[in-house]
Amino acid sequence: MDLKELTIKKLQKRGVSIDSIAEITLFLQEKYCNNLTLEKCREYVLNVIEKRESIYAILTAIAIDEAAEKGLFDKEVNELITNDEGLYGIDEILALSIVNVHGSIALTNFGYADKIKPGIIKVIDHIGKQKIQCHTFLDDIVSAIAASAASRIAHYEKKDN
Amino acid sequence: MDLKELTIKKLQKRGVSIDSIAEITLFLQEKYCNNLTLEKCREYVLNVIEKRESIYAILTAIAIDEAAEKGLFDKEVNELITNDEGLYGIDEILALSIVNVHGSIALTNFGYADKIKPGIIKVIDHIGKQKIQCHTFLDDIVSAIAASAASRIAHYEKKDN
Amino acid sequence: MDLKELTIKKLQKRGVSIDSIAEITLFLQEKYCNNLTLEKCREYVLNVIEKRESIYAILTAIAIDEAAEKGLFDKEVNELITNDEGLYGIDEILALSIVNVHGSIALTNFGYADKIKPGIIKVIDHIGKQKIQCHTFLDDIVSAIAASAASRIAHYEKKDN
Amino acid sequence: MDLKELTIKKLQKRGVSIDSIAEITLFLQEKYCNNLTLEKCREYVLNVIEKRESIYAILTAIAIDEAAEKGLFDKEVNELITNDEGLYGIDEILALSIVNVHGSIALTNFGYADKIKPGIIKVIDHIGKQKIQCHTFLDDIVSAIAASAASRIAHYEKKDN
Repeated sequence: MDLKELTIKKLQKRGVSIDSIAEITLFLQEKYCNNLTLEKCREYVLNVIEKRESIYAILTAIAIDEAAEKGLFDKEVNELITNDEGLYGIDEILALSIVNVHGSIALTNFGYADKIKPGIIKVIDHIGKQKIQCHTFLDDIVSAIAASAASRIAHYEKKDN
Repeated sequence: MDLKELTIKKLQKRGVSIDSIAEITLFLQEKYCNNLTLEKCREYVLNVIEKRESIYAILTAIAIDEAAEKGLFDKEVNELITNDEGLYGIDEILALSIVNVHGSIALTNFGYADKIKPGIIKVIDHIGKQKIQCHTFLDDIVSAIAASAASRIAHYEKKDN
Repeated sequence: MDLKELTIKKLQKRGVSIDSIAEITLFLQEKYCNNLTLEKCREYVLNVIEKRESIYAILTAIAIDEAAEKGLFDKEVNELITNDEGLYGIDEILALSIVNVHGSIALTNFGYADKIKPGIIKVIDHIGKQKIQCHTFLDDIVSAIAASAASRIAHYEKKDN
Repeated sequence: MDLKELTIKKLQKRGVSIDSIAEITLFLQEKYCNNLTLEKCREYVLNVIEKRESIYAILTAIAIDEAAEKGLFDKEVNELITNDEGLYGIDEILALSIVNVHGSIALTNFGYADKIKPGIIKVIDHIGKQKIQCHTFLDDIVSAIAASAASRIAHYEKKDN
């Protein structure tokens, strides 16, 4: 299995389907682009995920979440990660490796999605907060992918007005 | 007059009072910090503005807006700046010089404020869109200051829970 | 004339040819990629320049330099920009709009080129320091383009080992 | 033990003393600041390390390196991290959480140090390359701390000229 396939499989195993990310992209971008469909958003989400920066960021983020979940890190670091307190901040930074390569529109959409937590972001955040699984890094990664796909749409799809 | 005073005076001349920025900070942070007052937010906004990075960013941003307003740049660049189309992106980048030094919470709040445009941000954006004045760079700067003050509050004020 | 042509023409008018940037890219990347030629570097430099983020960043940077050169900004801002002191920092930030979209290798090469100032970067920095012309923003932009082209080569050209 | 002490202890356990970082800061900044001593650099390095963003970044970076060293991640991710190939890039991104909060001078010095690998950076990079230990994340973290301390010196120490 190549790394791209592995990345998509890993996302799904952690509860995040391509469609659930595409729904956030649709939510972010539909007001700027008439006739935008979930199908179209799915394509753009896949374009983002197959970039090398994304594959490395997604696989690393999930690896950290899984290791924290299993308690494999030193106690202090493990607590830092599983508690995911607002000031931790390393999760948002790691997501920047996806966001930065997609420009300013990706950046502002990332901040927006990270604050309002639409769709699947809220779901995994909630599971993380309840300590059922650790999603400290994954929720920021999902915001980053959805925001970057929205930015690609803004760059490549014709605008209505 | 020192550069800090000049910066505050310039902001006011362009229609942005310290209080109008503090109101956005209060809006961003009050749900995380009980008993947060406008007075307290004003202090934090001033802390952000008096940093060297902020002074330089604010003065440069306003200088670009004013020069574009007067048509001092080459025609093509002048239009790029006064039209402020979504893909321009240099305005958001310049604001990062304030946001970056205030950490991850500043970054996500910046993206959020830039999208929903609360209070004075919407006002100057509207004036800019109507081509009355050029506020292409200033609205991102105001988002950056308010978001950075919110981040400082998150770092330095006691949390309720 | 379209914006891409205008951008290349503007660079040349400010003393920066495509070849002078390609030479820096060759210097940065030749130790990692055998058989790398100036011709190949030139192609990659043009790939970087024709991206929308680059066009907007280059045109804006040169517009600021030219306006400062003519003394069109308020006295205090004009001095800030023409003096280009080490702590100003807005010039490096603006260049990030090119660097960020090209990933981590662009970022480290940007810092490296900005410090050692190879080739044309040193030339325009020197002209700027002597107050003959203002190149405060342009030298960082040239570092950014050369570093981003080096990053593209690292991503797309076959490695020797 | 508080987190700051733990962080310093962890750095030392991984082969990085405060003095070895201060030596890099001295190397980076001595040409801009006469009379700069190793003692003074040590103070600034400690100022950087005791910031919350640094503590979290350092502890997380070392935790990832240690987990990869022990083979605790999935095979594919573990190889990605231990191989530390040039295009991986997540290590540089994580280091940005320290660099960004210290401004533009930190950023360019970070890129420079990351390329030329002075002192202890070269030592741990070499140990990593030989697969004796995994230092994929740590070498970038050390560059980030040294570069950020250099930036603080540029901001707070009097210049000679």
